Amino acid sequence: MNKRIGIGLLGLGTVGSGVVNILKSAEGRNPLVKQLDLVRVAVRDIERSRQVHIPSSLLTTNPQEVVDDPRVQIVVEVMGGIEPARKLILSSIASGKSVVTANKSVIARYGEEIASAASKAGVYVLIEAAVGGGIPIIEPLKQSLGANRIERVSGIINGTTNYILSRMAKEGVPFLKVLKEAQQLGFAEADPASDIEGIDAADKIAILSGLAFGGSVDREAIPTRGISDLNALDIDYAKQLGFCVKLLAVCECIDPGTTEEESLPLGIRVQPTLIPFDHPLAGVNGVNNAILVEGEPVGKVMFYGPGAGSGPTASAVVADILNIAGINQIGEGKGFTDPLLSASSWRLCHIADPKKVVQRNYVRLSADDTPGVIGSIGTCFGNQGVSIQSIVQFDACSEKAEIVVITHEVSYGQMHKALIAIDSLSEVKGVSAHFACL
Amino acid sequence: MNKRIGIGLLGLGTVGSGVVNILKSAEGRNPLVKQLDLVRVAVRDIERSRQVHIPSSLLTTNPQEVVDDPRVQIVVEVMGGIEPARKLILSSIASGKSVVTANKSVIARYGEEIASAASKAGVYVLIEAAVGGGIPIIEPLKQSLGANRIERVSGIINGTTNYILSRMAKEGVPFLKVLKEAQQLGFAEADPASDIEGIDAADKIAILSGLAFGGSVDREAIPTRGISDLNALDIDYAKQLGFCVKLLAVCECIDPGTTEEESLPLGIRVQPTLIPFDHPLAGVNGVNNAILVEGEPVGKVMFYGPGAGSGPTASAVVADILNIAGINQIGEGKGFTDPLLSASSWRLCHIADPKKVVQRNYVRLSADDTPGVIGSIGTCFGNQGVSIQSIVQFDACSEKAEIVVITHEVSYGQMHKALIAIDSLSEVKGVSAHFACL
Repeated sequence: MNKRIGIGLLGLGTVGSGVVNILKSAEGRNPLVKQLDLVRVAVRDIERSRQVHIPSSLLTTNPQEVVDDPRVQIVVEVMGGIEPARKLILSSIASGKSVVTANKSVIARYGEEIASAASKAGVYVLIEAAVGGGIPIIEPLKQSLGANRIERVSGIINGTTNYILSRMAKEGVPFLKVLKEAQQLGFAEADPASDIEGIDAADKIAILSGLAFGGSVDREAIPTRGISDLNALDIDYAKQLGFCVKLLAVCECIDPGTTEEESLPLGIRVQPTLIPFDHPLAGVNGVNNAILVEGEPVGKVMFYGPGAGSGPTASAVVADILNIAGINQIGEGKGFTDPLLSASSWRLCHIADPKKVVQRNYVRLSADDTPGVIGSIGTCFGNQGVSIQSIVQFDACSEKAEIVVITHEVSYGQMHKALIAIDSLSEVKGVSAHFACL
Repeated sequence: MNKRIGIGLLGLGTVGSGVVNILKSAEGRNPLVKQLDLVRVAVRDIERSRQVHIPSSLLTTNPQEVVDDPRVQIVVEVMGGIEPARKLILSSIASGKSVVTANKSVIARYGEEIASAASKAGVYVLIEAAVGGGIPIIEPLKQSLGANRIERVSGIINGTTNYILSRMAKEGVPFLKVLKEAQQLGFAEADPASDIEGIDAADKIAILSGLAFGGSVDREAIPTRGISDLNALDIDYAKQLGFCVKLLAVCECIDPGTTEEESLPLGIRVQPTLIPFDHPLAGVNGVNNAILVEGEPVGKVMFYGPGAGSGPTASAVVADILNIAGINQIGEGKGFTDPLLSASSWRLCHIADPKKVVQRNYVRLSADDTPGVIGSIGTCFGNQGVSIQSIVQFDACSEKAEIVVITHEVSYGQMHKALIAIDSLSEVKGVSAHFACL
C-alpha cells in the first residue's frame, strides 16, 4: 500500500518547527516520511516571523479547526500546558483521529483518561517525545521489553538539572551561579521551578512507571525533591568518596511477590542521589539524559541521548507519526488496535508507603571535633538497625567537624528515627544534608 | 480481540530454553505473553535431559514438522548455523508464517533474500536477538529513529572480546592468558575464532548497516580485524594517553551528498579502536555491549546492556514474537505488512573504497633512541599530509625507544603511504602496532 497520511500540527514552537523541518526534507529518511502531508497548523499568531516557512493557507489560530479538518488523520500536539491541550487531544480521539503528543504534564496527569478514550475509539495516542527528548525509551519499553518482569526504572530525565549538576561538579561553583548562567545560555527557563524542583522529572517518572508496570499512579503523590538546596560541598565530598551527584528519578517494584490480581506497590521518588563512578548512569553529563531499565530476564539495559532540544524531540514525534502511518498501511483495523503500541493499563499499581521504601543514604552532619562523636553517631544508627558502610570525618575548620555517613540499604522509617536521635546529641550541631545513594 | 498465537520453536539450546522459561511464566509480563501457545519444538535429541521441561508430545527431531504444523503461526528459529536454518526460514515464509530469528550469520548473508520472500508472502521476519543480545537496538532503529538521516552507527557488539579487553586493561595480563580463563568461565567458545577474529562483530554490523542506511552490503567484503594480535603494551600506552581499547564495529555514510537514486557509499569496518575515556562507549565493560547511533536531527543516542546470555537473548526473541502477536490482534492484513516493522531495503548501498575512509590512527613505532628520530617521523607524516595530534616517546629500554603517534583524521591511503616511508627510515625498526582511534 502507499496511503498518504494528513498531519495536523497544534503548535509551531521549538518542537513544532523541528517536526516541520523533518517533514519538509524527506530525502534520506525512512521512505514513509514522504507519505506524510502537513495539511493544517495551529499557531498563536499568524503574522509572527518564524524559522520555518509554512504557506499561510495552512495556518489557523483556532486549534479546533486542525482537529476538525477532514484531511487531518493524525493530530500532533506540541503546544504544551494542560489546557487546552488535554481537551484538544480528547476531541481528536472523539473524531477517530490518532494523536502524537510531547506533553508530559497532560500525560502524567490525564494519561488514564486519554488512554481509555483512545482504546474505545480504536485510535493511538503515542508519547515518545514526552520523556527523554530524542532517546527511544517509550517505544522500547512497550515494544521491546514486554517479555520482562520489570523490577526498576531509574533515570536522569531532566536535562536542565543535569547540566547544572555537571557544571557544579566540574567547576566547583555554587548552584545559583550556574543556574544564572544556564538561563543566559538557554539551558534553563526564566522560571526554572518546574525543572529544578523536580516537577518535570516527576511527570516523566510517572509516565515511565505506568508503562513499565502496567498501571498508573497518583502523579501528585510522588515524593519529589529538587536540587535548589544542594550545596557544592556535598558534591565535593561525594566525589572524594567515589560518587557523583545526580537528580535521579526512580520507580521500582517493592514487593515482587504481588500477584496480578493485587495492586502492585511501587517505590517512586525524585531526589538528588549519589551514584558510584563506575555505574552506567554516572557518565551522563550536561543536557544528556539516560534511563536504566532492570528486568527479569533481560538484566540491565540503558538508553542514553539528548534529553531535549528541537531536533531530538522532533525525531521522537515523527517516529510516533511513522508508527501510526506504518500500521495504517496494513489496511482497516475495524476499530482494533495493536495492544503493544496502545499499551493500555493491565494491572493496578499504587505508590507504596515511603516508610517501607529502602535505599542507601548519604548524610552530612556538623559536629564538635571531640574524640567520642563518631562513636555516639554510630551507636544512634546501630540502635535503629541502620548498618553503616562508611563514616568519614572531613575537617571544615579547627573545632567543628563535618562527618559524612554512607549507610547500607535501610527503610526511610528507620533512617528517620536514627537521624532524630543523632540530632539530639549534644556534640552534633545538626543534619546538614541527607540524600539517597545508589 | 484476544487471538491465541501458536509458537513453533526450532532449537532448544541456551536461547530456546530462555524463551520457554518466559512463555511458561507469563504472570507479571505483558498480558500478550499469555496468548502465546508453545505447540511444537524441534530438538536434536529427544532423550537428552534439559533444564526446561517440555511435554515429549511437543518434541520432534524433524524441524520441518514444526514449520508444517498447522497450529504454528510464528516460527522461532534459534538453532543457529547457516543450514538448515536458512532453508527452514524460507520454508516458513513460503507457508505464510512469520519468523523470529536470533541467527546473525544467516541474516548477515541472506537477509536480502529472506526479506524479499517475506515481503512477497506478507509475513514478518524479526531479528532483534541477532544483534546486542537483550539490548533493544533493531526495533528502535526501525521504529524509533526512522525520522533521521543516519550518519554513523558504531558499537561494541561482541561480548567475548569486550570481556577479554576489559580484563587485559584492568589486570595488565596478556591476551592468551585471559582468553584461556574466559573459555574456562564460559565467556568464550572452545573455538573462539568467530569472536576474536571479529567475524561475529562483522555479521552484526552488516545487519545494523542495512537497517540504518536502508540497503544491504556485501557481508564478505567488510574489512575485519580482530584482537588476537593485540599487545597488552598498547592497552597500557593507550591508557596513559587517555584512551581505552575496544573492538569497535563502525558503519558510516562517507558522502552525505548522495541522492536516493545513487548507491550510498558506506565506510564499514571492524577493528581494535582507541576510545577516549570521556566517550559514552568507553565505560562499556565486561560482556556488555553498546551501540551508538548518530543521526540528523537526533544527535547521538546510545543503547547499552547485556550482549549475550540465555535470559537477555530470550527477552529479545519474545519481544519480536509480541510485536507480531500485537499486529495480529488488529485483524486480517490482507497480505499487507507494516513497512516500519518489515523494514525492507529502500535504497542501494555499497562498501566504499577503504582508501577513501578517513579516521584517526594510533601507531606504535620501535626506533633508535636518537635525537632526530621524532623529527624524521614527523616529516614523513607531513609529506603525506597526515596531521599529527600527539607524538610521545615511551622508553622501553635504554637504547630503543617506543614512539606512539596519534594522528588527526586522514584517509587510509595517506596513512599507508606515510607508514611505508617511516618504515624505510634507518632509525626506525618497524611499525609495531596500528589501530584506529576515535
